Amino acid sequence: MAANTSNYKLSAAIANLKYNDLIPYPNASDKTTREFLQKVVDILMDYIQKQNDRNEKILDFHHPEEMIKVLDLKIPLEGVSLNQLIHDCATTLKHQVKTGHPHFFNQLSSGLDLVSMAGEWLTATANTNMFTYEIAPVFILMETVVMTHMREIIGRCWRKGDSILAPGGSISNLYAFLAARHKMFPNYKEKGIATIQGQLVMYTSDQSHYSVKSCASICGLGTDNCVMVPSDERGRMIPAELERLIVDRKNKGHIPFFVACTSGTTVLGAFDPLNDIADICKKHGMWMHVDAAWGGGLLLSKKYRHPRLSGIERADSVTWNPHKLMGALLQCSTIHFKEDGLLMSCNQMSADYLFMQDKLYDIRYDTGDKVIQCGRHNDIFKLWLQWRAKGDDGFEQLMDRLMELTEYMVKRIKEQPNKFHLIMEPEMVNVSFWYVPKRLRNEPHGPSREKKLGELCPRLKAKMMEEGTLMTGYQPDDRRPNFFRNIISSAAVTEADIDFLLAEMDRLGQDM
Amino acid sequence: MAANTSNYKLSAAIANLKYNDLIPYPNASDKTTREFLQKVVDILMDYIQKQNDRNEKILDFHHPEEMIKVLDLKIPLEGVSLNQLIHDCATTLKHQVKTGHPHFFNQLSSGLDLVSMAGEWLTATANTNMFTYEIAPVFILMETVVMTHMREIIGRCWRKGDSILAPGGSISNLYAFLAARHKMFPNYKEKGIATIQGQLVMYTSDQSHYSVKSCASICGLGTDNCVMVPSDERGRMIPAELERLIVDRKNKGHIPFFVACTSGTTVLGAFDPLNDIADICKKHGMWMHVDAAWGGGLLLSKKYRHPRLSGIERADSVTWNPHKLMGALLQCSTIHFKEDGLLMSCNQMSADYLFMQDKLYDIRYDTGDKVIQCGRHNDIFKLWLQWRAKGDDGFEQLMDRLMELTEYMVKRIKEQPNKFHLIMEPEMVNVSFWYVPKRLRNEPHGPSREKKLGELCPRLKAKMMEEGTLMTGYQPDDRRPNFFRNIISSAAVTEADIDFLLAEMDRLGQDM
Repeated sequence: MAANTSNYKLSAAIANLKYNDLIPYPNASDKTTREFLQKVVDILMDYIQKQNDRNEKILDFHHPEEMIKVLDLKIPLEGVSLNQLIHDCATTLKHQVKTGHPHFFNQLSSGLDLVSMAGEWLTATANTNMFTYEIAPVFILMETVVMTHMREIIGRCWRKGDSILAPGGSISNLYAFLAARHKMFPNYKEKGIATIQGQLVMYTSDQSHYSVKSCASICGLGTDNCVMVPSDERGRMIPAELERLIVDRKNKGHIPFFVACTSGTTVLGAFDPLNDIADICKKHGMWMHVDAAWGGGLLLSKKYRHPRLSGIERADSVTWNPHKLMGALLQCSTIHFKEDGLLMSCNQMSADYLFMQDKLYDIRYDTGDKVIQCGRHNDIFKLWLQWRAKGDDGFEQLMDRLMELTEYMVKRIKEQPNKFHLIMEPEMVNVSFWYVPKRLRNEPHGPSREKKLGELCPRLKAKMMEEGTLMTGYQPDDRRPNFFRNIISSAAVTEADIDFLLAEMDRLGQDM
Repeated sequence: MAANTSNYKLSAAIANLKYNDLIPYPNASDKTTREFLQKVVDILMDYIQKQNDRNEKILDFHHPEEMIKVLDLKIPLEGVSLNQLIHDCATTLKHQVKTGHPHFFNQLSSGLDLVSMAGEWLTATANTNMFTYEIAPVFILMETVVMTHMREIIGRCWRKGDSILAPGGSISNLYAFLAARHKMFPNYKEKGIATIQGQLVMYTSDQSHYSVKSCASICGLGTDNCVMVPSDERGRMIPAELERLIVDRKNKGHIPFFVACTSGTTVLGAFDPLNDIADICKKHGMWMHVDAAWGGGLLLSKKYRHPRLSGIERADSVTWNPHKLMGALLQCSTIHFKEDGLLMSCNQMSADYLFMQDKLYDIRYDTGDKVIQCGRHNDIFKLWLQWRAKGDDGFEQLMDRLMELTEYMVKRIKEQPNKFHLIMEPEMVNVSFWYVPKRLRNEPHGPSREKKLGELCPRLKAKMMEEGTLMTGYQPDDRRPNFFRNIISSAAVTEADIDFLLAEMDRLGQDM
């Protein structure tokens, strides 16, 4: 550990100084402060360079009980020196997983967009809260501009709607649920369940993100009243099943009110048929929400938007996470509503002691009363700056490029049918497949071989992590045992990296 | 605008390059990348220096409609140059409110702790998600260490409990509500309201943060079933009133189950009498939650902890926001439970496709299944690094110092009774007072003068913002019209700044 973290040392004059020798403390000097911060920046810049060096490992794996011994994590009674803090920063990054490494294919969010990162550094330094124009004037206006732009991309009739940034797609989906319930049962806010005769019921596909089901638990419906609609073999909600299940509950006297579609499922990257579902929602007077946390990025691509997201403009609300496919830094999630005013009337608690009406400026810009968070992290600047850098064109190119790389990967997998078994043609950058070790290459594909291929996944993944050369994810689903799900969402990835990925799996797994 | 933002220019060789000349794009050079990032850092370092210059303004106020004209916020079709991005960063900070300026007394969160900021820069660069040990090994372990330490500070019997970081105190309070409901009605998760005969009722004081009431709305009770318990003249919940209101609802066949106390109310900084409330909760079999988002920091001070937070160890859950009094960067909020296992059993949606059970390492460290967020921002590193820097002793000194400064302010206000009217002796760093202009100095204090003093608040605040020299907050409450609430939560503040604050209010307001 000492070897490559000891490169970072403060000058002898300040090495043993402490936090209260930094600004804003009375003994502080600007010079000490700058040297300390510059040393942190040096560590970060070297980390970025190393992360993009394909000869470097992604991680240096230790089990938790070993890692606790390797690191000095304890909180001391007396604070450590500035030099120790520098050492702490270097050591932390040394043991952290390099999620921006070109061979990290493990997560929906990967890569490190440096413009977005610069934005996040500035956000930290500005250190403000997003509740009012009073203390975040520039950021509040940026939020207005970017949210309007995103709504226009969803659909022309969305321009006059409303949007908010939320801490992740799960909370965005919760906002949609709350707005839907409020729109349809405006007394629910004050009276709660007592206002309604009959059980509220919501619907989503069996492939949807678990946060949708979680809404039913949080909000008092109970998960039994979040009906999981069967999906087809490609992971798309089956509209006829949705309608059957709506009628089924209606016949029991229940009140179906909310359908959460998914555009880009977590595992298979599937897109629910939005137009068909919109017809059903219209017929039954239900709210249509689209969880496009993952797939939303493709709205930026003329080539890939249709047919995947066709019909999204007919929805009532849309979740879209720029921190996923678009590569904004974590976290950056947005929720959009076609109707303006709902966020406010649904969530306002009339906290006049915080959100005064008698201010110097036009308080329509204040957002504090529209959200369930009160204080909100500034998640807009990093996205705004990134979008300024890329423009709409640059984002479109990025989307198209990620999809092209996916097509390349599929092609390479098909070229090696003895080593890899493609599960289906992907609709998005999720590629689902099994790796086939030598001993199973001659066995005909069927349930028996699938079981063995599934058993291999955790073992091969463990090997990848121990070697530190590659990370890609695996999981089971309702139809099959464990299989690999590879994600290409980082601008760092090239065709050569895909070739490496497949070759490395083969190197590590062929004799397993 | 051009004047002081044009100091920041990239070298001619790279000024007109674009985002795809930065790492990780194919044409990128490490040199270009470093120059770009270094220029952003230069802007940030200069901002920090300026923010701490007492001769600099806190803000350069523009109304929203003017600000939109001054800034170029639009999202272009084609991305802008690296030099324009640098200009964008400088312009943004030029128009942002300097929340770390020593004369910014406006918000519960103020100041800029540079160690915490360095931590947030590193967090951005590491850009990972907190759901599993697999992708955030160091940060997940840090979370375990710091959360255990915080629980031990709450009370010795809390060691074996459980905790999580949440995006703000409102969501932390929501976690407490959900855990309480789940503990008392374990079938609620699946069956919802149908599992219970009778109306659930929760209690909080009329001075509590509005997010408590919001839980009742979100979770289906309805705000009518969040009973607002009257507080005494100092803003503390009246235990006898709590008990009376519990019995009242019980007599109606309702089910009182949850009391949310406040330790450090938003406006007055009041502390509810925890031991008395604990007795009542015990007697009636109710969950006791303490919202110490604001006041929790005083747990670190031997001098100020008692009697304010005496009895907190008897609670079932505690919200405590290090981003407030402790000065961690936004956001950093924690929720703690005395009982382990509740977070998991309450929030787990059995998403085996994300949180696999067959991993290489001990999955007890994974947190993804315990939270309602799925992905979580890494809010721990900045707090861990700050705590390493300060140690327990340094935090204690900071808490004591902020309270001493408050005592100094109260003393100075009392020394000028013609200019300032202190509303009450504060228990925390909130100081509530009126400023008295010349024309009202001879009028006896009473409802008529209070009304006029209240009308002055928005006008004097507007003047502060237009001059840009000072920011402090005002609001009405149930007992009185608008009054100033000054907050001392920044380590940058000195006695001289308090003197300035009072003198500047007098300079701006005496002839109003």
